[in-house]
Amino acid sequence: MIQFEVQLGTRAYPIYIGAGLLGEPRTLKQHIRGNHVFILSNERVAPLYLESVCRALEPKHILHLALAEGEDTKSLQTLEQVYTCLLENRCGRDTTVVALGGGVIGDIAGFAAATYLRGVDFIQIPTTLVAQVDSSVGGKTGVNHALGKNMIGAFYQPQCVIADLECLHTLPDRELRAGLAEIIKYGLIRDAEFFAWLEDNVERLLARDVDALTHAVHRSCRNKAEVVAEDELEISGARAMLNLGHTFGHAIETGLGYGQWLHGEAVACGMLMAARMSTRLGWLSEEACERTRALLQRAQLPLTLPETLQAETLLEHMARDKKVRAGQLHLVLLKDIGQAVLTGEFPASTLKDTLQEFCGS
Amino acid sequence: MIQFEVQLGTRAYPIYIGAGLLGEPRTLKQHIRGNHVFILSNERVAPLYLESVCRALEPKHILHLALAEGEDTKSLQTLEQVYTCLLENRCGRDTTVVALGGGVIGDIAGFAAATYLRGVDFIQIPTTLVAQVDSSVGGKTGVNHALGKNMIGAFYQPQCVIADLECLHTLPDRELRAGLAEIIKYGLIRDAEFFAWLEDNVERLLARDVDALTHAVHRSCRNKAEVVAEDELEISGARAMLNLGHTFGHAIETGLGYGQWLHGEAVACGMLMAARMSTRLGWLSEEACERTRALLQRAQLPLTLPETLQAETLLEHMARDKKVRAGQLHLVLLKDIGQAVLTGEFPASTLKDTLQEFCGS
Repeated sequence: MIQFEVQLGTRAYPIYIGAGLLGEPRTLKQHIRGNHVFILSNERVAPLYLESVCRALEPKHILHLALAEGEDTKSLQTLEQVYTCLLENRCGRDTTVVALGGGVIGDIAGFAAATYLRGVDFIQIPTTLVAQVDSSVGGKTGVNHALGKNMIGAFYQPQCVIADLECLHTLPDRELRAGLAEIIKYGLIRDAEFFAWLEDNVERLLARDVDALTHAVHRSCRNKAEVVAEDELEISGARAMLNLGHTFGHAIETGLGYGQWLHGEAVACGMLMAARMSTRLGWLSEEACERTRALLQRAQLPLTLPETLQAETLLEHMARDKKVRAGQLHLVLLKDIGQAVLTGEFPASTLKDTLQEFCGS
Repeated sequence: MIQFEVQLGTRAYPIYIGAGLLGEPRTLKQHIRGNHVFILSNERVAPLYLESVCRALEPKHILHLALAEGEDTKSLQTLEQVYTCLLENRCGRDTTVVALGGGVIGDIAGFAAATYLRGVDFIQIPTTLVAQVDSSVGGKTGVNHALGKNMIGAFYQPQCVIADLECLHTLPDRELRAGLAEIIKYGLIRDAEFFAWLEDNVERLLARDVDALTHAVHRSCRNKAEVVAEDELEISGARAMLNLGHTFGHAIETGLGYGQWLHGEAVACGMLMAARMSTRLGWLSEEACERTRALLQRAQLPLTLPETLQAETLLEHMARDKKVRAGQLHLVLLKDIGQAVLTGEFPASTLKDTLQEFCGS
């Protein structure tokens, strides 16, 4: 088992990475203070892992809610359903909320924990690759609004993150690939050595080689933890780098309707858009841009958009991004592989041209 | 103008108390970082003060939403309405949310600010006495759930609190009296000298004597600020003392249906219940209990419950209180005037007997 800490002072917490961890009582129980545990999962994950987790928690009093699968559930309506379940069962402040699932479950459960009785304890047990390498670490929680993704939320750190690599065996191929997008992201924004490793090992990851997956999850979480420790609340700009491809990606997700593309798929295409735009601006070499495209393609991620999606539509959704400041959209772009920048200094026409290159209209 | 700070380290902020403050550009504008301001108020307050505040904010870009008056609006549904308004108007992270109104408006606006885009700036301009002396200070924000009051929320500190004493001139008598309940609370829990001052001056406060009101608001805010600085997140127990009468009071409010009694009215009756229970336990002298009753009565606060309300109903609502730990209800009770304790160590029968004394059934 690998163990290391997200260094956040009084809010510091450990990340555990290993095979079979979610059924291990010792790892889990030391982080639960009270006697009540509320497990949030979904209809796919619960039949696979709920029993193991419950067994590891014995003799705690356990309450469980399984949501429908998919990004659609990440709504205020679901949140209300969670609150009602907690209240009907008289869960007090000594309740620990456990997120057992992917990013959607982690985001809802974390926001519910942040806001139920003004905050109760929270544990992340991410079961997808995206959640293990990205969304479960760093305390971003929240739900979507019809007018935009992740528009409602809070920064709220968990007590610990338990990434069980065995969960990756049951993950659908498409979700595994979506996870690779976020892994590649760390290489692109701040870890050129890791990017080169990924160029050598992407096929091993697709084949679910355990050693390769362990290395990729560990290296990704380390990168994420370092960034979060530096800029927990996304103030200095360091944390914003983690959004490479995300402003484009969120616009794609909103434009297509949540759930058409997986988040990681949209981010993959968004990262290529950011790379292309960086090249258009003369900031990123053609060669580095091509390396980016090639790796994303070998990871079998979608790099072209459905013809139905218009550049104008994407632009409109991007204008609602959280990184709009004083009316100016800010984007994470690339200076090199391993070096990202957050900037609002680009001609609007370059953004438009980039979008049209992908939309073909 | 009186000015002092709530000492919370990086989250420290000033409280300003004075007449005519809400129309003063200098006080307000120094706390607004961006160009966008969203003012949340209600249908009674907006016609009275909105114009002054807007004038003081010129030339900022101002957006405004006036909610219906009353505790009923403090819901997840209203919150969604606020988010939609913010998103439709493309408010970014540089938006400041201003709460212009009483406790309900402050709680909703604060929670919206805490959760919109994972947190934007927030300013409290409390216009009722309850809000000026209690709810606007200390960062408790949130909304109600059908199953309980303030069950959903966050600790989120404002940039500043601006308490304009001129607002108290237009306050309905009943709301003024409700504010007195929270003022008397500070005397009861930690400031015996202030309690004695209130015994000498309660009629001046009812007559809206400006000097008396200034002293009462100032002393109350100081007390609140000290408690909050000591225990921001209600962990050590110091902050829980501020809930004297509130567990009883919330049960009364829920039992009667939100909006039948004002929050301060329910707290007044709840404080007398806490005092009576403390006397039954032999902790508080009959004389101190009688002084409490007499002062609350002179403040013209309701001290008997409608006959429709059953002791059983109250008990059931109290069991859902946030201060239930490991199944045991904890209450703030009194050892003396000026000395409160948080305790779960009392016979259930004493609580029941106390409730029956007030319910008469």
